[in-house]
Parts: sequence; structure tokens; C-alpha cells
Amino acid sequence: VLDLIAPPLEGGVGRGLLDEWPRYFAYLISFATVGAAWIAHTGITEHIDRADATFLRLNLLALLFIAVLPFPTRLMAEYMGESDAERLAVTIYGLNLLLISATLSLLWRYAAAEHLIKADRSDEMVREYSRRLTPSLGLYGAGIVLGLFAPRLAAFVYLLVAVFLLVPIRTMVRKKRTRGEGGSG
Amino acid sequence: VLDLIAPPLEGGVGRGLLDEWPRYFAYLISFATVGAAWIAHTGITEHIDRADATFLRLNLLALLFIAVLPFPTRLMAEYMGESDAERLAVTIYGLNLLLISATLSLLWRYAAAEHLIKADRSDEMVREYSRRLTPSLGLYGAGIVLGLFAPRLAAFVYLLVAVFLLVPIRTMVRKKRTRGEGGSG
Amino acid sequence: VLDLIAPPLEGGVGRGLLDEWPRYFAYLISFATVGAAWIAHTGITEHIDRADATFLRLNLLALLFIAVLPFPTRLMAEYMGESDAERLAVTIYGLNLLLISATLSLLWRYAAAEHLIKADRSDEMVREYSRRLTPSLGLYGAGIVLGLFAPRLAAFVYLLVAVFLLVPIRTMVRKKRTRGEGGSG
Amino acid sequence: VLDLIAPPLEGGVGRGLLDEWPRYFAYLISFATVGAAWIAHTGITEHIDRADATFLRLNLLALLFIAVLPFPTRLMAEYMGESDAERLAVTIYGLNLLLISATLSLLWRYAAAEHLIKADRSDEMVREYSRRLTPSLGLYGAGIVLGLFAPRLAAFVYLLVAVFLLVPIRTMVRKKRTRGEGGSG
Repeated sequence: VLDLIAPPLEGGVGRGLLDEWPRYFAYLISFATVGAAWIAHTGITEHIDRADATFLRLNLLALLFIAVLPFPTRLMAEYMGESDAERLAVTIYGLNLLLISATLSLLWRYAAAEHLIKADRSDEMVREYSRRLTPSLGLYGAGIVLGLFAPRLAAFVYLLVAVFLLVPIRTMVRKKRTRGEGGSG
Repeated sequence: VLDLIAPPLEGGVGRGLLDEWPRYFAYLISFATVGAAWIAHTGITEHIDRADATFLRLNLLALLFIAVLPFPTRLMAEYMGESDAERLAVTIYGLNLLLISATLSLLWRYAAAEHLIKADRSDEMVREYSRRLTPSLGLYGAGIVLGLFAPRLAAFVYLLVAVFLLVPIRTMVRKKRTRGEGGSG
Repeated sequence: VLDLIAPPLEGGVGRGLLDEWPRYFAYLISFATVGAAWIAHTGITEHIDRADATFLRLNLLALLFIAVLPFPTRLMAEYMGESDAERLAVTIYGLNLLLISATLSLLWRYAAAEHLIKADRSDEMVREYSRRLTPSLGLYGAGIVLGLFAPRLAAFVYLLVAVFLLVPIRTMVRKKRTRGEGGSG
Repeated sequence: VLDLIAPPLEGGVGRGLLDEWPRYFAYLISFATVGAAWIAHTGITEHIDRADATFLRLNLLALLFIAVLPFPTRLMAEYMGESDAERLAVTIYGLNLLLISATLSLLWRYAAAEHLIKADRSDEMVREYSRRLTPSLGLYGAGIVLGLFAPRLAAFVYLLVAVFLLVPIRTMVRKKRTRGEGGSG
């Protein structure tokens, strides 16, 4: 998975390593995105009581889109700086992120619709989860359009989305509030 | 496992990516087939009460044939379009699929014969499972013969078999029927 | 791990694939050996009640020798047919197998000496397990010496050892005997 | 992960293999370090009662730094012997080790501060664990400074730190003492 190579000695290794920044950048976005997807997936399976045949297949589809991500990552790392190729690579990358996000969202909605979720989970909680899985869909859609004009900016947006999904702002806020109300933590 | 590479800039990246279609095609067939094998395997181990020494070895054999699949996948991706090599690659690929399917079928039949299956599973259910694991054997056999004359068509058949194994037609039908009869879900 | 590559089209793909036999051979030995090590390891952990710090480290050492095996495998695949290099490669390969076998044997003996084994396991069973893990040590030692004179024969011996460890002869015999004595299975 | 390649036949394979020592050396350090990190991580999760959102993210960060290690490993293997590049590679490697160690230490301290640790664990035990995770931080810091002047020596220090973390000196001492006091083992 780790497609990082040692640059040749000629011309200075330090410089050579710095010139490889698109690779680190692309790798970082993919790691953060896969990490966010993994946390979302863990959240989903934690609330699931049982999996039916369709759930398993949707799960496999999400896995396919995650397993395929190293390829667009490589394209993006390779073509960063080559205008047309860069645009194409970032667009393909964005579509892949959108597909990952969409299948995960679908997985949760399917589980909710088919009553696969544990009985003690409140409807409120299920709805909040659906809401939480939705904004990334819109952001990836916007990123794909943005990427047609400003590919690097779109790549940066994808990193921000992953970080936004990872850093638990809402959880922090909620925790603080709970404490303020005298909750036990 | 992911053997997808970024095409060179010369001649256009978009065109270069499209020309790589045999790779995506081969990767997709293998992913779908391994996914179907994984679901079949999960099904088998779920109904198993205990594993004896022979079961572990058969399991290892199935794992060998699955672990080896990336090699024929690569051959197929590499030689697609080169008549003789293409025929050979698709034939080797088909044989590998047949071996995966045959060992999984054998694994289940062995478990049934040696009474390794959980006691509360009905004979009817065991027989249905055996039936479900059988048709792919015949389809792969037919695909191998077909591949001698029309390799690409055979590759397409392999994709269809995997999709047929993955998309839970029977489950859907049964679910609908259960509901019609007033089942609780 | 899978180091198998598609041969070039020139000179015929079929011929090219046949010429690659040392790779398949080396891969098969390694797969069978790792499979046998995995089954032995599963057996060990199944009988273990708890792991202490030293057990974890020995376990890690066994893992190191298993994780490193693809390298001698590659050497053997690469140098098969080049007399001196072949000898060296097969010797390194044999030493690696010996180290895997020795650490696994040590792991079990350590567990037995430190009373880490589940209390309901009989002393007889513990001793039999120790015996079962021992012969491969001698066979690998003999293989290494043999390999100095006849490398390919030694490689074949390594395959036989792995198959001998995998095919559950003793288990089959015992099962038959148990049945003959009227055991419940 | 295993970046070890078979040297060409020209000039002697034996010599060629010996010349590859930086690769083995780098691989060994990384394996030992990842092994030590894995044992520390197992220790942490074993004492954890539940994981909150922040714990999962810190965990992911630790995973990122571990997943990235093969890259500095490759740099070190590639540039060993090339004075300037060697220094740079060993420094990057040391920083990576420091980051792994720091996130693991942070993970434990966070768990302790947020009362995520199982209730029956004594404060004494928690403090001892914090102490045990600390020295490697200082050693890696010192190693990075040392590496600016003597890169190979620093690499050797990193190996020693990993071995020191792996070989359970303290556990051995404690065990002996427990026995001397008439403990049950």
C-alpha cells in the first residue's frame, strides 16, 4: 500500500525527498479517509444486531471501494503538477471517496430500514447517525466539481473533510455540555 | 494485490487509463470472486461446531488457491488482446476459480459427512447448502471449455458467476415470500 | 508476498510460464511450511491458558522468522539452476525453516516448563506434542547438510517435510483406532 | 513490507548478499520496534475498559506512524554508507520512532486521565506503566541528536532500545523475586 520510494542520490536526497511531497500528501489524505471510514464502519457494526445477506453484500461493496483507493492515490501522487493529468487524477480520486462515503451511508440506512439495529438504540440516535454520515457526501460532490477547476484545492478539501470526520468536534462539545449539566462523564 | 499502475504521460493519461481496461476488468472479477468465496466460507464456518485436523487442512488448501489467484489475474490483465497468450491466461484463471470452488464445496461436504456441523442445523438446510455450492462448479467447467474458443467471453462469464453468487437473488425471493406469509421479518 | 510475474510475450508465453517453475516450486514450499507452522501455532495457543511476557517475546521471534521467509523464497526462486548461488540460497532457506521450527518447539517447551498450559491437559498430551514438534528439527538439519551437495533434492525434502507435517497421518490412524475401539468419534 | 531483493549473479551472490547488510539491519530494527510497539499496545488495550472517540483517534494516529515506518526504513537501507543522505535518513527514522513512542505514551496517559482504565487496576500499576512508556521517549530524543554526528551509531542505539523494550528484564527480576518470597508463580 505504501508507495513511497527513496529518491536517487543525484541532485541531493533532501531536495529529492521534498520534491516527493505530492506522494506524502496523497498518502496522508488516503490514510485519513480510510481511518475515518474505518471509524464510521466500526460505529455501524457496533450498533448492528445481526447482518442479513444484503448487508453483507453492501459491506463488500464498501470494502471494494476502500480496497481500490490506493490506485487513485497513486494516480494523484504521480500526476500532481501535470495540469490535465492532475485534474483527471483528482476527479477520479474524488469519485472514489464519494463512492466510499455513499456505500457507508447506504449501509447504515439499509440497516435502519431493515431493523438490523440493536433494539435498545433510540430512533433519535439512529437519525443522528444518518445525519452525521450525510454531509461528507455533499462535500465530496462539491469537491469533485471544484476539482475540475482547481485540482490541488480539491485535494486539500478532501484532506480537510477527512480531518473534520476524524477530529471529534461534536463529541467534545457534547462531553463538555454533559459535564456542565453535572453528568458523570 | 492491487496491480494497477499509473500510465505514462505521453499519449494522454485519459487514453492510457482507458487502455488499461483489462486490468480493471481482471481485478473486478477477482475481487468479486474472492468476495463470493469469503461469503461462502463465512457461511460454512458459521454452521460448523468444531474443526478436526482434516478440516483445517482442506481449509488451508482453499486458502492456497485463493492466495494464488492474483497470479492468474495478473496473467489475464497482461495478455488480454494477445490471442494465444490470452487463451492460456484465461484457461489458467478458470482452472484456479474451479479449484477454489471445488475445495470450498469439498470443505462443506466433508463437514457434513463427519458431523462437524452444529446439531441444531436441519438436514434440509445442509442439503440446500450443498446444492448452492454446486452450480458454480459446473459453470466454471463450462467457462474453461468456452475459454478455449472465446477467452474474453469466458472472462465475462466468470464475472457473471461471481455477481450471481454475490447478489442474493434467492435470499430476496425467500424474504419476500416470508413477508407474504406474514413473517415478522 | 506473491512474487510471481507474467513472462514476456517473446518466445511463447506457455514456454515462459513453464520456465518459471522454480518460482512456483519455491512458493509452494513456503506456503506449505507457513501453513504447517500456522497449524502448529494454532495448536499451541489453543492449549495455552495464559501468556507471560517471555512467551509473548518468543512468539514475536517465531513471527520474525516466518515474516522473513519470503526473502529466502525469492532467493531460491531466483537462483535455481545457478549452481553456487542455488546452493547458497537453499542453505539460507533451510536455516530459516530450521529457525521457524526451533522457535515453535521452544515456545511449546517454555509453555510446558512454566505451567502456562491449561490445567486439564494431560502430561501425556504435553509430551506427545513436544515429540511431534521435534522430528522436523532433525529433518531440517539433515536437509541443510544435504543441500550443500544436492540443493534441489534438499528443496524437495523441505516440501516433503511440510506435506508430512500437514497431512494428518497420525490423526487419521488415531481416529480409525478410536472407532475400532467403539469410541463415539 | 519486506523490501529485500536478490542481488544479481555477477560478482558473486554471497558477496552481494553480504553487501545488502544495511537492508537486513534496517529491517531488523523496524521489526523489533514494531514488535515492541505491538506489545506495548496490547498491554494498553488489555487494561482499557472502554474506548471513547478521542482514544480511537489517538489510536489511529499511532497506527499512522507505525504504518509509515517502512518508508524511513527503506530510506535508511538505501542510503546507508552515503554520508549526507545517511544522516538525513537516520534522522527521519529516529523522528518516526519518537512519534510512535510519543503517541503510545499519550494514548496511555489519556486513558488514565479520562478514567478509561478498568476499575480494578491499581493507581500504582497505572503509574508504573506511565513510567515504563517514558524512557524510550528520552532515548529516541538522544538518538536523534546523536544521529546528526554518528548516524550508524544512532541506528544501533535504536536497535538496542527496541531489544531493551522487548527483552523483559524487569519481568524476569520481578518473577524471581516473587518466587523468592514464596509466590505461587
